[in-house]
Amino acid sequence: MTASLAHAVSPSEPTERLLSPAELEAALRDIGARRYHNLHPFHRLLHDGKLDKDQVRAWALNRYYYQAMIPVKDATLLARLPDANLRRVWRQRIVDHDGDHEGDGGIERWLKLAEGVGFERDYVLSTRGILSATRFSVEAYVHFVAERSLLEAIASSLTEMFSPTIISERVAGMLKNYDFITRETLAYFDKRLTQAPRDADFALDYVKRHAVTPEQQAQALDALRFKCSVLWTQLDALYFAYVSPKMIPPDAWRPGEGLRAGAGA
Amino acid sequence: MTASLAHAVSPSEPTERLLSPAELEAALRDIGARRYHNLHPFHRLLHDGKLDKDQVRAWALNRYYYQAMIPVKDATLLARLPDANLRRVWRQRIVDHDGDHEGDGGIERWLKLAEGVGFERDYVLSTRGILSATRFSVEAYVHFVAERSLLEAIASSLTEMFSPTIISERVAGMLKNYDFITRETLAYFDKRLTQAPRDADFALDYVKRHAVTPEQQAQALDALRFKCSVLWTQLDALYFAYVSPKMIPPDAWRPGEGLRAGAGA
Repeated sequence: MTASLAHAVSPSEPTERLLSPAELEAALRDIGARRYHNLHPFHRLLHDGKLDKDQVRAWALNRYYYQAMIPVKDATLLARLPDANLRRVWRQRIVDHDGDHEGDGGIERWLKLAEGVGFERDYVLSTRGILSATRFSVEAYVHFVAERSLLEAIASSLTEMFSPTIISERVAGMLKNYDFITRETLAYFDKRLTQAPRDADFALDYVKRHAVTPEQQAQALDALRFKCSVLWTQLDALYFAYVSPKMIPPDAWRPGEGLRAGAGA
Repeated sequence: MTASLAHAVSPSEPTERLLSPAELEAALRDIGARRYHNLHPFHRLLHDGKLDKDQVRAWALNRYYYQAMIPVKDATLLARLPDANLRRVWRQRIVDHDGDHEGDGGIERWLKLAEGVGFERDYVLSTRGILSATRFSVEAYVHFVAERSLLEAIASSLTEMFSPTIISERVAGMLKNYDFITRETLAYFDKRLTQAPRDADFALDYVKRHAVTPEQQAQALDALRFKCSVLWTQLDALYFAYVSPKMIPPDAWRPGEGLRAGAGA
């Protein structure tokens, strides 16, 4: 059945000629420069201190689902890697997110962030307050990695090439502008500043070595465009529900729900 | 891999006790009364003649992808049905949408609708202008039908119980309020007025006969809630991009694109 969606995405158009590895890298970076979610108005508001506490909460709550599914995505990809050398490298991503023991790892650090802005841990874990658009976008990413070629699956991870910039902006902006955000709350991002470039370097090298026809290069570029849309669509939905026109869909989190006693407004 | 998303949706809570078939039907209808997309502000605007031509175009263009994937969804379900009696009934849905020959069927009638509001046929077929949120929502539906129990897959089709009302409102409202909409353009809906109730009756009967534990009844109810969110999320995204705040995502259709020569504003 999974193959049935192969035709569901607009077909790639081959690049006009075979790009050199350096040209391919430049084309990938150009996609980031034009479509990465640091350009989304919701992120500008978040970094510039223009969101209220409930809007930051909505972001933390929804983004938790993305974080929680990343190791599922990486395990899906791991299962498709044909040799131990590749799997040894890729499995580190799962270790980073799931940690070595209870209380460790990136998911746990994101839970701390969500608790830091006032949520009950169990409410966040349940994911019952997230937007359907968050759920569908995140699951589209997992399915993409399961269903597309290995090259496309790996290329879709390349948004990590662009994350150090956004993380630096985000941490500095949020610490400066929100008195309810502490450096401890943002510990997730400290780790990602070293993890993401290491992961991105490996994936970029893989893509440059394995996208060796114009068709494969177009697929790699499209995979990165797809992933940018996964991130962008999540911020569209947050903006719609919690910034403007503030039309919260049925079942999605409403300010006041799921908070720790005393977390306040 | 498909099983990996089974935990990704909030677990169903069993209904408190076993409902009678009539109570289960009432509970399903109650979900429709509170969550079906006829309640969405975008639909009110559409029916009341409050959208401009480009906003109607955005709706027709995006909704095409939903229509086009329905037979893929139904073929996915057909492949899971264990006996010929069931498959004989369910396959009619595919016939209805794909038709008996070129130029026939529900997808073709939706293409006529999209052409009727000014689009080039090939632009619509390419789906390259649709919102990512449309794509992810529609594909979430196909994946749901592939991955969940057969009972849940069938129950997710039950939004058709509610469609005759919305279709009647839509056809009357659109003919009255938009001079660029003709009865011929809306031929899709004429057929659905008889097809949808026939399909819904069968699916409802199946669900009432096969949801025989509190857990199964909760799953059936959740499946219908899920499907309502698939429809609702598509209208959220249309509203966000084309009504307010009109923040069209990268790559999505912009007014003026993909139109037939002379289709005009």
